Amino acid sequence: MKPLVEELGRRGNQVVVVIPEVSLSMGSSQHTTTLTYPVPYTKAQLQEQVNAGVTTLTSVYVSTDLARLQNFIKTMDLLNVLITRNVEGLLSNKDLMKKLEEYNFDAILSDPFEPTGPIVGEYLSIPAIYIQTSHPCGADALASQCPAPASYVPQGLTHFTDRMNLWQRSVNLVRTLLQPMACERMFARADEIASNVLQRKTSVVEIMSHAALWFVHSDFVLEFPRPLMPNMIIVGGMDNKKAEPLPQELEEFVNGSGEHGFVVFTLGSMVSQLPEAKARVFFEAFRQIPQRVLWRHTGPVPENAPKNVKLMKWLPQNDLLGHPKVKAFITHGGSHGIYEGIYHGVPLVMLPLFGDQGDNVQRLVSRGVAETLSIYDLTSEKLLVALRKVINDKSYKEKMTELSAIHRDRPIEPLDLAVFWTEFVMRHKGAVHLRPAAHELNWIQYHSLDVIGFLLLILVTVIFVTVKSCMFCFRKCFKKTQKKKKE
Amino acid sequence: MKPLVEELGRRGNQVVVVIPEVSLSMGSSQHTTTLTYPVPYTKAQLQEQVNAGVTTLTSVYVSTDLARLQNFIKTMDLLNVLITRNVEGLLSNKDLMKKLEEYNFDAILSDPFEPTGPIVGEYLSIPAIYIQTSHPCGADALASQCPAPASYVPQGLTHFTDRMNLWQRSVNLVRTLLQPMACERMFARADEIASNVLQRKTSVVEIMSHAALWFVHSDFVLEFPRPLMPNMIIVGGMDNKKAEPLPQELEEFVNGSGEHGFVVFTLGSMVSQLPEAKARVFFEAFRQIPQRVLWRHTGPVPENAPKNVKLMKWLPQNDLLGHPKVKAFITHGGSHGIYEGIYHGVPLVMLPLFGDQGDNVQRLVSRGVAETLSIYDLTSEKLLVALRKVINDKSYKEKMTELSAIHRDRPIEPLDLAVFWTEFVMRHKGAVHLRPAAHELNWIQYHSLDVIGFLLLILVTVIFVTVKSCMFCFRKCFKKTQKKKKE
Repeated sequence: MKPLVEELGRRGNQVVVVIPEVSLSMGSSQHTTTLTYPVPYTKAQLQEQVNAGVTTLTSVYVSTDLARLQNFIKTMDLLNVLITRNVEGLLSNKDLMKKLEEYNFDAILSDPFEPTGPIVGEYLSIPAIYIQTSHPCGADALASQCPAPASYVPQGLTHFTDRMNLWQRSVNLVRTLLQPMACERMFARADEIASNVLQRKTSVVEIMSHAALWFVHSDFVLEFPRPLMPNMIIVGGMDNKKAEPLPQELEEFVNGSGEHGFVVFTLGSMVSQLPEAKARVFFEAFRQIPQRVLWRHTGPVPENAPKNVKLMKWLPQNDLLGHPKVKAFITHGGSHGIYEGIYHGVPLVMLPLFGDQGDNVQRLVSRGVAETLSIYDLTSEKLLVALRKVINDKSYKEKMTELSAIHRDRPIEPLDLAVFWTEFVMRHKGAVHLRPAAHELNWIQYHSLDVIGFLLLILVTVIFVTVKSCMFCFRKCFKKTQKKKKE
Repeated sequence: MKPLVEELGRRGNQVVVVIPEVSLSMGSSQHTTTLTYPVPYTKAQLQEQVNAGVTTLTSVYVSTDLARLQNFIKTMDLLNVLITRNVEGLLSNKDLMKKLEEYNFDAILSDPFEPTGPIVGEYLSIPAIYIQTSHPCGADALASQCPAPASYVPQGLTHFTDRMNLWQRSVNLVRTLLQPMACERMFARADEIASNVLQRKTSVVEIMSHAALWFVHSDFVLEFPRPLMPNMIIVGGMDNKKAEPLPQELEEFVNGSGEHGFVVFTLGSMVSQLPEAKARVFFEAFRQIPQRVLWRHTGPVPENAPKNVKLMKWLPQNDLLGHPKVKAFITHGGSHGIYEGIYHGVPLVMLPLFGDQGDNVQRLVSRGVAETLSIYDLTSEKLLVALRKVINDKSYKEKMTELSAIHRDRPIEPLDLAVFWTEFVMRHKGAVHLRPAAHELNWIQYHSLDVIGFLLLILVTVIFVTVKSCMFCFRKCFKKTQKKKKE
């Protein structure tokens, strides 16, 4: 969301960013006013909870579909606790809430992963725009009334592609049907809070169904094609940026291997350190390739570390991926890094860890632009095979270049599109003309089940009356013939 | 399609327009090469067939839902004959077909109302873009795999809105379920032709399912919000144009009534003449309003025609609707005129005749920007009431101004968008990344019916085994107790 709010501010809108005092990744931004509110946890506690809870439950190394289904429900229960602390922190902060009310905002932009934005927006009666990739319990699908046929739209965390066999489609259908129940569990506490604050019986999903727009941070070079609603705006790659020149020292390093080029390696902001034994696997593999390697690594370094590897605490990832000599990107498969990889057309070796990374891997492997490995049974040999494949087999680079060309070829830049539609909502006080009448139907009506019942009733009545009439006529005729016979 | 092909040509693309020699509205355009082919009918015959057939069957004065349903099927049978004459004319024209092959086109743009474009495009193996509003048999819905829940997406020619009662939803569901059958009837002959030409068993709907993109000539200021597919591009209002100044004589006429302004009246290109008695109704009503009236009318004029009415053979409709003094637009409700009315924010009095006009009326009346009248039982009084209402009741103008503002407020002009996506298809040889996997599923799989069967089987098996086990245990226990008792 950061590039969007900064751009909105830069273009002269008054933007107020409201964030909790403690956060893993949020912070103040340019051209905006930042307001914070106290929350009852420390950064260390938050990091620990995320590591211990969500990352374990959504680990891609849960091997069976049924175990994943079970973990999905457990994740909902865990999130039920984690996601309500902020909304409680903000709503109980009377001073801040009064201040927000006085701003008289034209619109609220929010990631509805947590219910804070939706509930506060509804309380202040502001048109809401939600920005996200996909919601853990499927609240986006439920609230937007967007059809997602279970036969080819894989649910999150299933690791399925859009081509599923009967078993996978069965698991996917069960997951789709579980969405309302999953959202009830995930938002059990939040629903109570919302009902209290708004003084009517409501739910977070119902509140979210009032959304003016949904900004979908996704693009069909990565995501499988699926139905959309008119108020969904595709803004994936909103933070794509051209590469800047590298600092001189780095530029010299990446040029050191001549035509062989170099490899970028990072496991994202959540994992900066690997156990020594695991790190050794990587060092041994890197020793055997002619490419140079830039690795975001803060752990211990073995004495005989190969010379072609440069370890750094922080990498200028986008500038490296946009360098003409980059040959491959070893990544955990977070969506940010993936879009940078696609934007610059760099083939990937993926080591997925948790969350949507397992799904992302499927999408890229199925497009022939990535190889995937398991970090648990990783050996230098396996890593070498995968790396050499994506570097030397030209098809990976060709297909990735094609994806990149498609991803970049848009009638309007996604950031401009997001700014336009945000300002549209501010100008027109929402986007009522894009709101489908589906919101006024209940589940039975939406799926035409009452109509099917009604039509069956008519059919049965018609058949019944026809049969009875026929039997009546038949009997009459029969009696006559009998009578005649008797006569 | 004309503004699009002209703009494509103007921007330097080589555009070849292939049209039948005889046509009601097609003709050569600027910056393009036009090729024609002979067809076995004259313009008079075509006009007569359209008048006698389609306009009668789809007349909005068919009063019951069931009669409309019946006429819908009859229309399909009629179209089955009408729409195949062009494709036969073109395909049998060996010289022209050879010429088309030699062009080696990058893309084909076609209105799939007639199967000519789809079949010829498939024969030449060119990526296809279809441009249309809505297809009579629903081929667009079937071929694009776009979900259209029957509970709130009204089918064409039903005159329903997106808020339907149980009966209307029933009719709508039946119409939705009839789509495959309707398309089989409408394309019965065309399917044969396609199978012959392509030398494999195929159908027009199957051919259309290979479409790279769908340009949907519609906008959600008119159309009810409904699901879309990623390869559907909304280009409604593509031919919106700013108003040019009027010729001096006209300018003087429309200014003649001062602040009262003027009314524009046309019934479209299909109806330029009204029976004398019917025309008198209009003259009598116009005599009683302070506004001046510009009327596209070629019929006989009564002697005492009111002075505030000016009759013309052709109206500069867009320039008149864009004039600051225009107060109302009396129209039959064809989509072209409606978009011009919306673009310029002019309230409407609608006299729907046939085809989609009955549906369009519902859309605009439900938004409070139009009044509708039946041309059959029209009286001067009724016309006066409606005209005075839309002119004097400010809410019509206000709501229409709002629709106009929303319709004009887009991140990119629809014509630019259509040009961009056409050139996108030419650059990337299609738009494969937007093709949903739904195309690889059959009807049963798509609707997860096999999965539901599979899950029910599992459920029944589990229940059966559980019950049997319980009974087995129960019997064992029971026997034991009996034995004990005996002992």
